[in-house]
Amino acid sequence: MTQLQEAKVGVITDAMRTVAEREKAPPETVLAEMAAGRAVIPFNPSHKNCRPVGVGRIFSTKINANLGCSKDRSSLQEELSKLDVALKYGADFVMDLTVGKDVSFIRGEMLKHSPVPLGTVPIYETVSRLEGSVPKMDMSLLLDVIEEQAEQGVDFMTLHAGLLRRHIPLAMKRVMGIVSRGGSLMAEWMLEHDKENPLYENWDKVLDILVKHDVTVSLGDGLRPGCLADASDEAQFEELSVLGELVKACRERGVQVMVEGPGHIPFNEIKMNMEKEQELCFGAPFYVLGPVVTDIAPGYDHLVSAIGATAAATYGASLLCYVTPAEHLGLPTEEDVKQGCVAYKIAAHAGDVARGFPGAADIDLKMSEARKNFDWDKQFECALDPETAKARWMKGEPESHDEDHCTMCGKEFCAVRTTKRIKELLAKKD
Amino acid sequence: MTQLQEAKVGVITDAMRTVAEREKAPPETVLAEMAAGRAVIPFNPSHKNCRPVGVGRIFSTKINANLGCSKDRSSLQEELSKLDVALKYGADFVMDLTVGKDVSFIRGEMLKHSPVPLGTVPIYETVSRLEGSVPKMDMSLLLDVIEEQAEQGVDFMTLHAGLLRRHIPLAMKRVMGIVSRGGSLMAEWMLEHDKENPLYENWDKVLDILVKHDVTVSLGDGLRPGCLADASDEAQFEELSVLGELVKACRERGVQVMVEGPGHIPFNEIKMNMEKEQELCFGAPFYVLGPVVTDIAPGYDHLVSAIGATAAATYGASLLCYVTPAEHLGLPTEEDVKQGCVAYKIAAHAGDVARGFPGAADIDLKMSEARKNFDWDKQFECALDPETAKARWMKGEPESHDEDHCTMCGKEFCAVRTTKRIKELLAKKD
Repeated sequence: MTQLQEAKVGVITDAMRTVAEREKAPPETVLAEMAAGRAVIPFNPSHKNCRPVGVGRIFSTKINANLGCSKDRSSLQEELSKLDVALKYGADFVMDLTVGKDVSFIRGEMLKHSPVPLGTVPIYETVSRLEGSVPKMDMSLLLDVIEEQAEQGVDFMTLHAGLLRRHIPLAMKRVMGIVSRGGSLMAEWMLEHDKENPLYENWDKVLDILVKHDVTVSLGDGLRPGCLADASDEAQFEELSVLGELVKACRERGVQVMVEGPGHIPFNEIKMNMEKEQELCFGAPFYVLGPVVTDIAPGYDHLVSAIGATAAATYGASLLCYVTPAEHLGLPTEEDVKQGCVAYKIAAHAGDVARGFPGAADIDLKMSEARKNFDWDKQFECALDPETAKARWMKGEPESHDEDHCTMCGKEFCAVRTTKRIKELLAKKD
Repeated sequence: MTQLQEAKVGVITDAMRTVAEREKAPPETVLAEMAAGRAVIPFNPSHKNCRPVGVGRIFSTKINANLGCSKDRSSLQEELSKLDVALKYGADFVMDLTVGKDVSFIRGEMLKHSPVPLGTVPIYETVSRLEGSVPKMDMSLLLDVIEEQAEQGVDFMTLHAGLLRRHIPLAMKRVMGIVSRGGSLMAEWMLEHDKENPLYENWDKVLDILVKHDVTVSLGDGLRPGCLADASDEAQFEELSVLGELVKACRERGVQVMVEGPGHIPFNEIKMNMEKEQELCFGAPFYVLGPVVTDIAPGYDHLVSAIGATAAATYGASLLCYVTPAEHLGLPTEEDVKQGCVAYKIAAHAGDVARGFPGAADIDLKMSEARKNFDWDKQFECALDPETAKARWMKGEPESHDEDHCTMCGKEFCAVRTTKRIKELLAKKD
């Protein structure tokens, strides 16, 4: 039975209990949210040594790191190193987006090495097996790939089942068209074969496989906007409404489901986008990519999208897919993976603080107490990236490193030191 | 006559005209906003070769870079190099926050080298002259320093005139107390001498000097919160309400005025903070530092605060003071200055797009068109930091650099390429 099926009959599973404990939530609340489909625990029993992680608004906001070889670049070894970096900097989930050769072998190794749930986009392997030729794809091959990946232990899969034929002309009106790799491949196939989206048409067969292995569906947003000019348009929301239908079908069948979201969205439209998904997709956990809030900062898209991701986490998203500084420019390096993860831990945490998630700001308070007391070790302990913070501090003059100020203001102008003197003066007057 | 005095009598000055042209705003609108005090042009006639820059909601959002030697560190040469970096990466304003020796000489050189308006915090020089001893300060010295700086050509000055004696106990209830250097020095002085804030008490004398040189006042928020736990508290808003009084006094005297703001503020409280300032300070341009939206990411505070700055620019701020990765850890290096400036150009621009500032999104559209067309040169042209974007792109395999994809997805999986094929398929069907 899947976690959802168990929840529906009122059983609190070990996975739910573990998640409840980690999140300091009552197991009964976790059960209720799981049963309602507002929370998921992507957790394929065949993924050995994987820890269950909860996604939903009752939990803290989670982050995902995309990894995997592109056809032009990278090796298994490099991707495993990036996996280590992602784990070190706090990735709660990883996706293996490898395309090209040895997709299945690489994924197997990634699964072995990953203690966090791992996701895939099965159409990537499918089209890779056909050496990139989309027209040659048929549904039975796609189903085979989904089944093999499920058996191998993949915890969640992005399936672009909501992009329908009638949406394609809407997307072609855009500046950027379709920027989802999976979405564009599905659209090309539909036009080549003059048929409807095969995942949509065969959704029951897909669910048969997923329910057997308790693979969580991540409904892909094939029509996510690829630039500000395309944001919040008809194509995007028409697809989103189909994703809502598919959410219902998944829940009825006992398959856990989350919904993927944009993309490139101006800052002022993020709240509306989060609310629209909650409404059209019946509160299914929202898994967003960014969003990027301006198109003009390639090289800094981790930062640009952390702005959007903070707003997304504040207003409705539960899982944030990182964007790295390499976005729009190339495959991320290890350093890019680090920068992406840290930026997204910041966004997830700032969002949790902003939405008043219980206990979220405790660590901020601890940091501030350490700052007030010039307890540098404690400050680094509270820091999201202690090594970087400490290294930066060490750049100052050596004399400043033993105690009660830093080189930013210097001893005489340090406001925290002055505050201490003010307190002494006030105490004297009393 | 100051720009404000001219505006009040209906004169469109050369500075207003230049600003209007650059901002593509009708000169009459600039005049009206200046007269109402909702816009300022910090522009001291003694600052030779300085270009006028407008601050206010009718203009695009501006950024400021803080520079200057701390007592423990840095030299004039280093600070001039940082000034070059700040200008290269788009700083619209700079502040020289030098403390210690040779403050006046360093500032003179900075003024000579800066084609953008330059600001200071006069109490830094005052206390530096007394070798850090706040108790020795008297008002005549502070007035002398303000006058000398005004004569030298300083375009705007931060004066902590709104932090009153009765506010100090409120601030001492906080976790972090007073984190503004100037604010904490003023508070210490008040307690040592058992007197009210001398700037507040002598505000007319201060305005006499400023009006003569058309120096713009930047009303310092001595009680800005220094951690999330202290945000939006009584101390902060009591001071803000005094700043509102001072805004009125400035405007009556014909002195241009803007108001400084926080600081550390949770993401969800930023909108309220922006609106409160507009209300309590009668629409005076709001000049904010960040805000930082979580305390726990030292080493990344440029990113953390760019999140807050985007929200601030969206909801009411007109000028964003950058925060660098060195914040809370040490004096910024050249690289920190660069990172701070780029992060804040992103925030200012994303905010302008979000508030629907006319024409703001044009460059995003241009970038997106270039992306669609694989016009890499045009993409770099549209990029906020062309060099970094290009260098990152060049890391990919050489074969990918002449044309129609990048190493992120590779040729076969590039969605933009697939979109092209989809368009061809659709055209065939028509």
